[in-house]
Amino acid sequence: MLDGVKMASRRALKAVLVDLSGTLHVDDTAVPGAQDALHRLRRASLAVKFVTNTTKESKRNLLGRLRGLNFDLQENEIFTSLSAARSLLEKTRLRPLLLVEDGALEDFAGIDTSEPNAVVVGLAPEHFNYQTMNTAFRLVLGGAPLIAIHKARYYKRKDGLALGPGPFVTGLEYATDCQATVVGKPEKTFFTQALADLGCSPDEAVMIGDDARDDVGGAQSTGMLGILVRTGKYRPGDENKVNPAPHLTCDTFPDAVDHILHNLL
Amino acid sequence: MLDGVKMASRRALKAVLVDLSGTLHVDDTAVPGAQDALHRLRRASLAVKFVTNTTKESKRNLLGRLRGLNFDLQENEIFTSLSAARSLLEKTRLRPLLLVEDGALEDFAGIDTSEPNAVVVGLAPEHFNYQTMNTAFRLVLGGAPLIAIHKARYYKRKDGLALGPGPFVTGLEYATDCQATVVGKPEKTFFTQALADLGCSPDEAVMIGDDARDDVGGAQSTGMLGILVRTGKYRPGDENKVNPAPHLTCDTFPDAVDHILHNLL
Repeated sequence: MLDGVKMASRRALKAVLVDLSGTLHVDDTAVPGAQDALHRLRRASLAVKFVTNTTKESKRNLLGRLRGLNFDLQENEIFTSLSAARSLLEKTRLRPLLLVEDGALEDFAGIDTSEPNAVVVGLAPEHFNYQTMNTAFRLVLGGAPLIAIHKARYYKRKDGLALGPGPFVTGLEYATDCQATVVGKPEKTFFTQALADLGCSPDEAVMIGDDARDDVGGAQSTGMLGILVRTGKYRPGDENKVNPAPHLTCDTFPDAVDHILHNLL
Repeated sequence: MLDGVKMASRRALKAVLVDLSGTLHVDDTAVPGAQDALHRLRRASLAVKFVTNTTKESKRNLLGRLRGLNFDLQENEIFTSLSAARSLLEKTRLRPLLLVEDGALEDFAGIDTSEPNAVVVGLAPEHFNYQTMNTAFRLVLGGAPLIAIHKARYYKRKDGLALGPGPFVTGLEYATDCQATVVGKPEKTFFTQALADLGCSPDEAVMIGDDARDDVGGAQSTGMLGILVRTGKYRPGDENKVNPAPHLTCDTFPDAVDHILHNLL
C-alpha cells in the first residue's frame, strides 16, 4: 500500500488537504461518516484545509452548503481556485476582466477591475458569447496575461455533461498564440499556496480527493502524499492514470482518515 | 524565378485558381487592372475558378459584390469553403447543426438539418454562445463529426481584429478530445475539389493568392504552382513562410497573369 511514495525520508505529518465535491459529499448528500472522520482528524491535532476547483461559488456559499450538511469548518479553512486567482492578482497588481459567474464575484471584492490589463476565465456561461470573448481576445493580444481558474473540459450537470471553462480558455490561447496561467488544481502553485497559510511543507502534508489527476497527481507532484477515494467522479482504473501511483486508493473519506491516523502519525 | 517548383515534368497549363479578397480586390476596391487581367486569362483559353475561405457569404452575395466591381464571372465559377462543406455533407449524407451566419445558409439549401448528426462550424458570432456551443459539444461527444469551414484565428474588421471560427473549433476539439475535419484552404481536398469540376489535375493548374500559407502553401502541397501577390494581407517576408517557396512572388494579380501568359503557356 505504501509503495507509491517513499515514506522513510518524510517529516511528521502536520496537515491534511481535503477536496470537497465527490470527497466529503456527492451532490447534496454527505459521504456517510465523513463529518465524524473530520472530527477525528482535528482531534489528532492535524491542520485541515478544504481545497476545491470551483469557479462559480464564493467561499461563503461553499461554507453555507457544507455547514448545511453538518460539517464543522471555518471560512478561512477553505482554499479555492478563485482564492488562488485572487492571490495572483494581488501579487501582480493586475486589473482583471473577470469572466466568472456573478456568485463568484464577492471573492474578488476590493480588486480593481477598471481599465482591465488581465483576463481571468472561470466557468461563466453568461459571459461566453462572441462579444465578450472578443473583448478578452483583444486584451490578451495586446499583452494582458490570460489567467485560467482551471481548464476542465466539461462537468456533470443534472441534464447531462456541459462545457467547462477549459474549451474557452483553449480557444483564447489558440487565437492569441499564448499560454494561460492556470491557478487551480492540478497546478503545483495551487497546493503550495494552500499549504503556505498553514506554515507547513509538502512533505508534511497529505491530500485526499476523488480526482486522480487533479487531486492526487497534482498534490504528489509537489511532494505531498495523495490518497484517492472511490466516491464522486472516481471510475475503476483511475488510480492507474497517475504516475507515481496514489499513495493509497480506498473506498471513502473515512477510510482515508483511518489510514492516516493508523499509519502516517 | 522558377526555382520553387520544377517545371520540366509539368503538363500544359489548363486552369487558374484565383483568391478573391486581397487578390482581386481589397475591401471595396478592385486591384487596378485586375478586371482586364482576368479577360486576358480567359482569352488564353484558361479555365478560371475563384476560390475563397468565406464562412459567411453565399456565392450569390460574392457574385453580386464582384460584379459590382466590374469583374466578369459566373456563379458556378466560384468555389468557397462553404461549397466544400456542402460537398462533404452530400457525400457523407450527414445532417448538420449549421453554426454559420444567416447569410451563408442559402448555400446549404436542400440539406437536411433535422435531428443533426454532424456539426459544421463557420464564423457565426450569433451562435457562439454557451448554449449553442454546449449543444454542439454534446453532439460531437456522442459521435457526430466536427467539420470546420476553416480554422482562422482572427480576421481584420473595421474596428480592429476579431475572433475567427478557429478558436471555437479548437475549444470544441479540446472539450471532446477529437480533431475537426477542416474543409477550407489550406486543406488539400479543398483545392482538388475546386479542380475536379474543371476536369484537370494539380499539375495542370496554378493558384494566385495573397496568403502564403492558405493559398500558396496549400495549393503547392497538392502539386499545383502557387503565385503569391503583394496585396491584401501580404506582409514582407511572407514568401519565406512556406516550403517549398512560392513558384513566384509578384506585386499584383495583373503581374501574376502576365507571368502565366509569358512563361507558363
